[in-house]
Amino acid sequence: MVIFASYSYIFMQNILVIGAGRSASSLINYLLTHSVKENWNVTVGDVSLDLVKQKTAGHSNARAIQFDINNDAQREEEIKRADIVISMLPAFMHMNVAKDCVKYKKHLATASYVSKEMKELDADAKAAGIILMNEIGLDPGIDHASAMKVIDHIHEQGGELTSFQSFCGGLVAPECNDNPWGYKFSWNPRNVVLAGQGTAQFIENGEYKYIPYNRLFTQICTIEMDGYGKFDAYANRDSLSYRKIYNLEKIPTMLRGTLRMPGYCKAWNVFVKLGLTDDSYKIEASETLTYKQLLEAFLPQGKQSVKEKLIAFMGNEMDAETLSKIEWLEILTDRKIRLKDATPAQILQDLLEEKWLLKENDKDMIVMQHEFEYSLKGQTKKIKSSLVVKGEDQTYTAMAKTVGLPLAISAKLILQGKIKARGVVIPTTKEIYEPVLAELETLGVKFVEKGI
Amino acid sequence: MVIFASYSYIFMQNILVIGAGRSASSLINYLLTHSVKENWNVTVGDVSLDLVKQKTAGHSNARAIQFDINNDAQREEEIKRADIVISMLPAFMHMNVAKDCVKYKKHLATASYVSKEMKELDADAKAAGIILMNEIGLDPGIDHASAMKVIDHIHEQGGELTSFQSFCGGLVAPECNDNPWGYKFSWNPRNVVLAGQGTAQFIENGEYKYIPYNRLFTQICTIEMDGYGKFDAYANRDSLSYRKIYNLEKIPTMLRGTLRMPGYCKAWNVFVKLGLTDDSYKIEASETLTYKQLLEAFLPQGKQSVKEKLIAFMGNEMDAETLSKIEWLEILTDRKIRLKDATPAQILQDLLEEKWLLKENDKDMIVMQHEFEYSLKGQTKKIKSSLVVKGEDQTYTAMAKTVGLPLAISAKLILQGKIKARGVVIPTTKEIYEPVLAELETLGVKFVEKGI
Repeated sequence: MVIFASYSYIFMQNILVIGAGRSASSLINYLLTHSVKENWNVTVGDVSLDLVKQKTAGHSNARAIQFDINNDAQREEEIKRADIVISMLPAFMHMNVAKDCVKYKKHLATASYVSKEMKELDADAKAAGIILMNEIGLDPGIDHASAMKVIDHIHEQGGELTSFQSFCGGLVAPECNDNPWGYKFSWNPRNVVLAGQGTAQFIENGEYKYIPYNRLFTQICTIEMDGYGKFDAYANRDSLSYRKIYNLEKIPTMLRGTLRMPGYCKAWNVFVKLGLTDDSYKIEASETLTYKQLLEAFLPQGKQSVKEKLIAFMGNEMDAETLSKIEWLEILTDRKIRLKDATPAQILQDLLEEKWLLKENDKDMIVMQHEFEYSLKGQTKKIKSSLVVKGEDQTYTAMAKTVGLPLAISAKLILQGKIKARGVVIPTTKEIYEPVLAELETLGVKFVEKGI
Repeated sequence: MVIFASYSYIFMQNILVIGAGRSASSLINYLLTHSVKENWNVTVGDVSLDLVKQKTAGHSNARAIQFDINNDAQREEEIKRADIVISMLPAFMHMNVAKDCVKYKKHLATASYVSKEMKELDADAKAAGIILMNEIGLDPGIDHASAMKVIDHIHEQGGELTSFQSFCGGLVAPECNDNPWGYKFSWNPRNVVLAGQGTAQFIENGEYKYIPYNRLFTQICTIEMDGYGKFDAYANRDSLSYRKIYNLEKIPTMLRGTLRMPGYCKAWNVFVKLGLTDDSYKIEASETLTYKQLLEAFLPQGKQSVKEKLIAFMGNEMDAETLSKIEWLEILTDRKIRLKDATPAQILQDLLEEKWLLKENDKDMIVMQHEFEYSLKGQTKKIKSSLVVKGEDQTYTAMAKTVGLPLAISAKLILQGKIKARGVVIPTTKEIYEPVLAELETLGVKFVEKGI
């Protein structure tokens, strides 16, 4: 009996998923769905065992464990058992996992940017014969894959790219858009509140362009998407580094940006200008203040009402629509601040998490659009490549699908031996992007390409 | 012979000065001048032996050494020899010195803010019977001493402070002010370029006030100084923590600010708004650009000249005087950037270091003014306490005097056994501020107090 059991185990492959939060729903679902045919044992670990049990729902190939990333013994034990590890942890927590993966010769997949420390593991990972696959979620992830597919195709035809602009936004589906901001949280609220801090860097017609945070949300552009109308786009922090990643080192225009509903940026700029997105210091005794009092502390002194002072303060940057967005948040009211000694950004986030909650039957929406310009045989050509994905509900969000499915598919391809690359890898090569994009299409994540 | 030499050494006290840069001139001069009467051997160490030799000028009680703070053996050896160590190093380099001082039971004096790590040495320093005296320069230093003298006096009379505003600036003397900014560097240029980043925090009439960096230089106030006219003042980052330090925890108004010549802040705001004071990322191939091209990269695109675009960009924040300040810096010209792959702040600093150079015969000027409001026996009273110190030349600057002399005097008082406090200390107690201020007066560093 024991011998038989062991024998059957030889043919099972073990997947360890670390983290069962919001973005892991579709990933876990895919892995469990495919586990029978593929002979996978899927171990899912999270600090919250309840969360894991909820996500694995008693599936026969699932093993639910409570998992503490800082418990070295447990982490090493679980990684030793696995053939591949999928880490859904925040980026800064990957490194212990990655080092164990190298040590025990196990593959790793994450949706996070390659950090300097991760990059340094490249040679060791290659020597260990494993792949440390990173940036295989939505953004980064699907953006790389879908962009490189078009870029490689243009290069193969002998074309030369003169402009590449790429935009992505995690929004709320129009039919569920019932607030004046047109926004609800489908991923980490903290990242939304702190978005753009630093200086945006891109290149336009051969000239470098820099937009510091203090005017990032005022220097926006408008993106049009067939069937979905117009969106605001603000520049992402670093567009320049993508020239090297995409093999476009001499391209004169390269811009990556984030999409929001029209008017969002103008209203968000009120918070930036006030200083309410600062996360670097704590407001003393914040729990004793109302939101109106907090706002007042950021406004020049005067005898008018807070609302009047705010309007005067913003000058011609304020209009009725912007004011209505601000007022809708109840930030001009006597609403009590709940957080104790918190930063302005934390206090703002706490309010927004309530106001911008993705409700149970709300659907989120991912929008991505690439705009390529290139010259081919003396002619200037343009291609637009667009993706819209809507969520099913609050659990199987578009965000969870587009982050989790590329991870799941690439894990399958690695276990099947179809991805042969080793070392620290991102999905910019055909070996990866072709099968990943092809399978994503079958799952409803499909780009529409159009010459314009 | 050997015995006699040793005998005489018993009566000599050893002072170790680490760092012989710009701010150390007056400190070293004071120590050497007093060394004969006080029986001091003064060892001065710096990475540059030339600099040390220049500052010690062959004085018989001076010992000039090349000193490498990262050479553990040398550092410990020199600290072991000393009775007191005076560290002129940048704040972040003090800790190894401070730890050695505790280990070998030697006193320490610095002009830097007490760091968290320094504070943690308090109990050990007390156990070792030594003083770790910090914040005993100008600001912090003379500001603490002179403020506490008035505050203690008001409290002793039974008065209650209702407002304390304190301003300080390191400027150029009016007779040497030959540039439109009214500013030349008398201390670390980097600190001037990065000044104010973060959010200024203070309290006014019982209400907390926050001014983020993006509008710090627009929300200024005007300070009047008898005999010297008006100055711009912008709020320092942290005024709130001084309430505890000064024993004014319930004071309704507490503001600390930095003084500049009128018009400076309005012009500096142009750089803030452009983003040219950002030190967090590098401009690619900056050495291939001109200053005009750099400026253009921060301006919205358009067909006008850079100057026209800059004027349009600043809108009503630009006037003729502001523009003349900007143009005087040659930042709108084809002047080449000298630094390779540098940050915007570094590139700006490199230009300013040439333009704002304190020339050989230029005199700098320190201006400090405290404004106290208090109630005493039902009456509201006001006191202004003001200090103006002018430098002698480029070496014995007002900055070097006001930073170095309090350090030197307090070192003398410690060696003489007149300061008995032990542990981590700042000059807010009478034992320290009374004799330090009294001797500073004899050296021309004298506050003028006036009821208003």
